[in-house]
Formats: sequence, C-alpha cells, structure tokens
Amino acid sequence: MSDACRAELLAIGSEILLGQIHNAHARFISAELAKHGLYVYHHVAVGDNEARIQAAYQTAVTRSNVVIVTGGLGPTVDDLTKEALAAFLARKLVLSNEALAQLETYFAHRQRKMPEENRKQAYCIEGGELIPNPNGTAPGQYIFAKNVHFFLLPGPPLEMQPMLRDYVLPKLLDVFGGSQALVSRILHFCGIGESDVDEQVRDLTASANPTVAPLAGEGEMLLRITATAGSEEAAKAKIAPIEADIRRRFGSYIYGVDDDTLPTVVGRMLEEQRATIGVAESCTGGMLAAMFTDIPGSSAYFLGGIVAYDNHVKEALLGVPANVLETKGAVSEETAKAMAEGVRSRLQSTYGIGITGIAGPGGGTADKPVGLVFVAVADASGTEVFRLQYRVSRQQVRLRTCKQALWRLLNRMQQHAPEIGNSP
Amino acid sequence: MSDACRAELLAIGSEILLGQIHNAHARFISAELAKHGLYVYHHVAVGDNEARIQAAYQTAVTRSNVVIVTGGLGPTVDDLTKEALAAFLARKLVLSNEALAQLETYFAHRQRKMPEENRKQAYCIEGGELIPNPNGTAPGQYIFAKNVHFFLLPGPPLEMQPMLRDYVLPKLLDVFGGSQALVSRILHFCGIGESDVDEQVRDLTASANPTVAPLAGEGEMLLRITATAGSEEAAKAKIAPIEADIRRRFGSYIYGVDDDTLPTVVGRMLEEQRATIGVAESCTGGMLAAMFTDIPGSSAYFLGGIVAYDNHVKEALLGVPANVLETKGAVSEETAKAMAEGVRSRLQSTYGIGITGIAGPGGGTADKPVGLVFVAVADASGTEVFRLQYRVSRQQVRLRTCKQALWRLLNRMQQHAPEIGNSP
Repeated sequence: MSDACRAELLAIGSEILLGQIHNAHARFISAELAKHGLYVYHHVAVGDNEARIQAAYQTAVTRSNVVIVTGGLGPTVDDLTKEALAAFLARKLVLSNEALAQLETYFAHRQRKMPEENRKQAYCIEGGELIPNPNGTAPGQYIFAKNVHFFLLPGPPLEMQPMLRDYVLPKLLDVFGGSQALVSRILHFCGIGESDVDEQVRDLTASANPTVAPLAGEGEMLLRITATAGSEEAAKAKIAPIEADIRRRFGSYIYGVDDDTLPTVVGRMLEEQRATIGVAESCTGGMLAAMFTDIPGSSAYFLGGIVAYDNHVKEALLGVPANVLETKGAVSEETAKAMAEGVRSRLQSTYGIGITGIAGPGGGTADKPVGLVFVAVADASGTEVFRLQYRVSRQQVRLRTCKQALWRLLNRMQQHAPEIGNSP
Repeated sequence: MSDACRAELLAIGSEILLGQIHNAHARFISAELAKHGLYVYHHVAVGDNEARIQAAYQTAVTRSNVVIVTGGLGPTVDDLTKEALAAFLARKLVLSNEALAQLETYFAHRQRKMPEENRKQAYCIEGGELIPNPNGTAPGQYIFAKNVHFFLLPGPPLEMQPMLRDYVLPKLLDVFGGSQALVSRILHFCGIGESDVDEQVRDLTASANPTVAPLAGEGEMLLRITATAGSEEAAKAKIAPIEADIRRRFGSYIYGVDDDTLPTVVGRMLEEQRATIGVAESCTGGMLAAMFTDIPGSSAYFLGGIVAYDNHVKEALLGVPANVLETKGAVSEETAKAMAEGVRSRLQSTYGIGITGIAGPGGGTADKPVGLVFVAVADASGTEVFRLQYRVSRQQVRLRTCKQALWRLLNRMQQHAPEIGNSP
C-alpha cells in the first residue's frame, strides 16, 4: 500500500462536548504522528451516543484511511466505542480468553476480585486484534476494514499514550513507511518583542521547505523551523543552515531549543559554573523559586528564597534599610538592589536575584503604575537593576517577570564566564 | 422556530492538526453553551485548506442547526474561513465601509497605518451581519443560511470570548429561548480519596436529574451536581437538597463550591479572622507561597515565605536546630515543626506552615522513600505535624502537598476560629 496516511482522530465522551475537559488526546496524538510525517486532517469529538458514534465512523471512512478513536472502552453501559464500531462494520463481538486472563491478573495483582461488569472489556471485534494495555483494564483494539485502519484506545492518558507509542505508531510506520519524515526544531527567544522577531525573519517565513513560523509563548516567543525530506537526517540537514542564519541575526536573544525552558537552561549553566543562586521575591511571591525547584536535582545550585511580601519581612529577613523603604518605596530600584544583595549575603550564594513590583490589579499610582517591576541581579562584581513595565494581567506580569529575571541572570552568567558556558 | 439547539463547533487551523496547540475554544464554547442549556453535539477541527473547510460546512449542515467557527479570519492568504463559507453558500463577499472604518480607527489608535493586507478583513458575506470585535482587527460574521445559524469568530481567545458572550449567546438564547436551563454545582473535596467519595455517593450517581458525577482533580476531587429544568431557579431548587445530603455525608472534607480553590477559601478565612500567615517550604520550593500570592489582595494576610532548600538556609533563616537536622534529618517531623514555628516567629504571623519532604525522583532511602512529606501547622496554641506518603510524580507530590497544607490549615482555622477571632 503506497497510499499516504490521512488520519482522523475521533474522541468519544460527553464530558468533552459539555466543556468539562479538553480533548487533550487530539493534540498529543497529532504531535506524535507529525513527528513521523504522518498527517492528521480531521479532529472530531462526539458524545456517548451510539447513533452519533456510528455516524462519525461513516463520515470518517469517506475521507480518511486511519481512524484513531479514544475513550469509551470502559466497563459501563455508557462505554459504546467498541460496540458502535462492531455494529457499523456488521461484525460480532467475541470473548477473548487472553484478554479475560489479563483482566483477571490485573485485578488479582490488586488483591481484588474482578467485578462482573469488567467482563465486557474482554470482548474483541471479530477479525480484529487486541492492543495490550499494561496500565489499565481496557485493552485497545485494531481492525482493518472498509479500507481503513481503525485503532480504539482507552481514554486515560497514562494508558493511551504508551499504547499509541508501542503499538499504533509502529503499525502506521509499517503500513505508510515510505512517507516523508517531518522534523521540527523550535528556537526559544526572550528579551525581544514578537513583532521585532517577525519583522527580522519575514524573508524566511516565505520559504516553503523548511518553513519558519513564529509561535506565541507566554513571556517569550518561539520560532519553529520545519522541514520534510526523505529521511530524518535529510530533514535535519535542511534545518541546520536556516537555524545558523537565525542565530546570526538574534544572538543571545535565543536562549534555548526544543524542550529547553529558561529554568532548565539557567540551571544547566549554574551547574557548569558550580555556582549557586538565592532569590528574593515580592510581587512574584515564590513563583521564581517554584520554577527553579520544579526541576529535579535543582538542589545542586538552588539554595533557597525569601518571599518578602510584607515590608517588615523585607527589612527583617533581607536587610532592606528602613529608610530606603520609606524614601524610595517598596517598589523601587533601590529596594530591588537591596533585596538581591540581601538574599545573596544571607544565603551565601554566588548569584542573588531581587524582584519587586506591582502585579495588580490594585496598588498602582500615577508614579508607579500597575505592571511596574524592578529586577536586580547581584554577584561578586556588583548589582544590575532592570526596570520593566507591563500592560497585562496579574498572572502574566508575574510569569513574565520570572522569565525576564531568568533571562537577565543568564546574560549575566554568560558575560562573566565566557570561558565556560558555550552553547552547543 | 421551536427546534432545539444542535450546535457544532468547527475550529480552523493547521497548528491544531499538527498538535502544536490545543483546540481550547471547543471546551470554552461548550461550557458556555451548556450553562444555558444549549447542547453541542459535535466538535470538529480541520486545517487551513479551503476544500476541507468547505467539506466540513457540508457535513455540518446535514446534522446541526448552529455552527460556530473559530479561527481563520486573519489578514493573510492562509485565512480562509470566510472565503470558504461564501463559496459554500454561493454568496459574494462585499466590502463593509463600517468594518473598514473600524479597522482604520483600530490602527490609528495604535499610531500605525493600516497595512493593505488587513483590508481583506473588512469584507462581509452578502446577507450576513458583522459581529463587532472591540479587541482586535478581525470582525466576526453571522449569517443564517441553509437553515443553519453560522457564526464566524476570530481565533485569539481574548477576542473570541467577549464576542461569544456579547453576541453569540444572546442571539442563540433569542432563537432557542424555550429550551431547558441546565445548571451545575461543583463541590470540592480535599483530604479524602476518590474511591471513598465514589463509594459513599453511589446511590446518588444513579439519579437521572439531577445527575451526580465525580470529576478527578489534581490532589483534590470534585462532585458535579447537574439539573435541568424549565428555569434556572427550578434547576437550582432541584440541586439544593442533593447538595445538603452530600454535605451531611462528608462534612469538612468539602472545602468549597464552583470556582473556589483552596487558596481562595483559605485567604477568605484568614481575612475574616484578621489573621496572617507565613510559610516555610523545602520540597514545594515556593509553590505554596506562589499559590497564595497568585490571589489579588493576598498581601492583606500573606506576609511572606522562606524557601529553605539548603540545610544551611533551614538553620540560618528558620532557626531549625543543627542537632535536629543531624539526628532526625531534614525530612522529619521535628524539622517540619521547627520550620513552621521558625517562620511564624520570624514573620510574626498568626499561623506558620512548614513543609519538608522528598519530591523525587531521586533522594529516597528505604527509611525515607520518595513521596514522604511532613506538613506542620503552627499557631499560638501549638503545632500539629502530618505525615504524608505519595506514590506519584515530582510535580504531583509538590502540588498535592501544597493542597494538603492548605486543607490542614483550613481545618485548624475552623477549630480555633472562636478564640482567635481578633488576633494578632
């Protein structure tokens, strides 16, 4: 079969149609297939209604040659995915002794007797195959019928995702193996506006292969370079010169690639420098510390933080002088500087960060409007303070401030250690 | 027209089909419509391809009487939503002077000349209406044709959402006004396992109207009670006795309703008690402080926090005795207690919380496995310490620990409320 993959994703579940949960599977499966050059042309979601599920199969077979269905494989009477497909294909459901044995083992391992209703999950569509599910009770099903490869997968993500990777993707690559490889590389920017990036890459975004597309992030921006070619290596070779060109244009505004985040890149460089960090936060209120400590192993460089929300705390725990707070105010260049230096000396860390600002929605004045933030970065050679002004929501002010602080720290580390942290 | 609403949501955008973004609109619009008893039966997403968009319209008109389309109204040649609908309906696109004037005003306010390509956005499908967009350049469109109410809305959520609420919903309620009201009430649980709740409400989940359905949250669980009736008031009256019944069964395990979160409920009670809080965090690393400070106005009760990741910081900033750290270890009941008491005395807060644990994936031992956490709550009357043991990921350990800490604090405040009423 030399046909190209035309996949359709069908999510079953009334909770999706009622807006109670996202159809998150559609994104995950699409991204996994795209990595392998397998194209998805339709996403559909319908509720737990047999007539509408059957109609969705009918529509799908007129336009797609792969249909991946998620959800509706549970033991209850609401779970109709398999039953609807059997009816649509006019096939019987037959008890699989293998599936029944697996189900019984699953419950036995949990010291429980298998409830009678779970027996329904051991039935397989005649002529189909079971897809093993090591993480739950619902086996998946595969069947090729009406010139369509149907895959039925359970709804819980931790069950569905391994089954997709271990069974569905290998099967699809086997069937559509001759298709093109599609490779993406994502460049992460900070410290530069989206429109500035857009303008400076306009000549590249016109290109058809590789494509260069801006993606909006929160407090940062991303450019995605995507190439298709006969092999993964060939696609990567198409991307390399474009990436080099973009790096020449933007230099240190590009802080990472693909799955990099500011905290992981900063953490990596701190480890390389055998340096440590302490943070003093007012308006971000612990968010920057939480970003650092979200990373496993961050205890190697992250010593701690002081969330100085109250002015008394800024004085008592960070040593911000009372007269600075009085004359310059809690939101001032001087307070940010004293916070960064205070946390650095109290924690005896290589670097100290101080953040103070007005996240809003209240608390602004004519002089110091909502969205005004000062970020200070201190090390042995001195302290730099950056004044930022945002016009976004409280959540966005906080998040963007944390990212700016990380990016400023990264720049500082790069300046002070040119011999160590070179990008790959 | 007494027909009931059978809505279909159609999202246009190749980035959705490539798995780069969630189709988040589908959830938002579904939830908004459900609140008003307007049912959505299909979600569909297709890429920026005119033939597939037209085919999606064709499928939609055979089964739906309302089609809400999002995305593809921008100024570029990739934006085809409107063009495809005009072609599908065999209607012309006509320049709207009103829309053009609005566009020019939009750019003038931003001190920019309108780019020529934006002119495309001022065209309207013949016989349709423009839907004003106060937050962007793309006006929406409404047209009734082929017995279907079509609404075209722009993709950016901050543009789409107000247009849905201000234009689409009123129009739908006008057309389908006689339909049933659907009202949901969500109860939030903490401190009790999902299976325990399930078991104790099994008799209620069999009911058809109101329905009672468990929803899984992260580190908490939710029960949704949903009733349909001729009016919103009648639906609420159906919910009330069921809610009272559930509250009798679970007492303080229910901490809030609907949009309540643990931080907002705790914050509200701290304000009522005129009490203050300080937190000392090790394994949660600032996350609990960030949850408090995420709430506007939290400076009224949240004084600050100390993120004591390093043992030196636990000693120096929180006064955890060196011999406790040596003999009992950083992850111990004694250290959690000293942290809670230390932060409370240093910040002079009514309540102090101390958290220490092993979030993983590394750092566990046979005695102290990954997922072991101690949470201490201190006030003037003493300190309680809770031992928790999780078997989940690092992120989940951290998040669930924060929620447990908030719930334990809430219980403490409820017990002590009469005496503490006017402290400190």
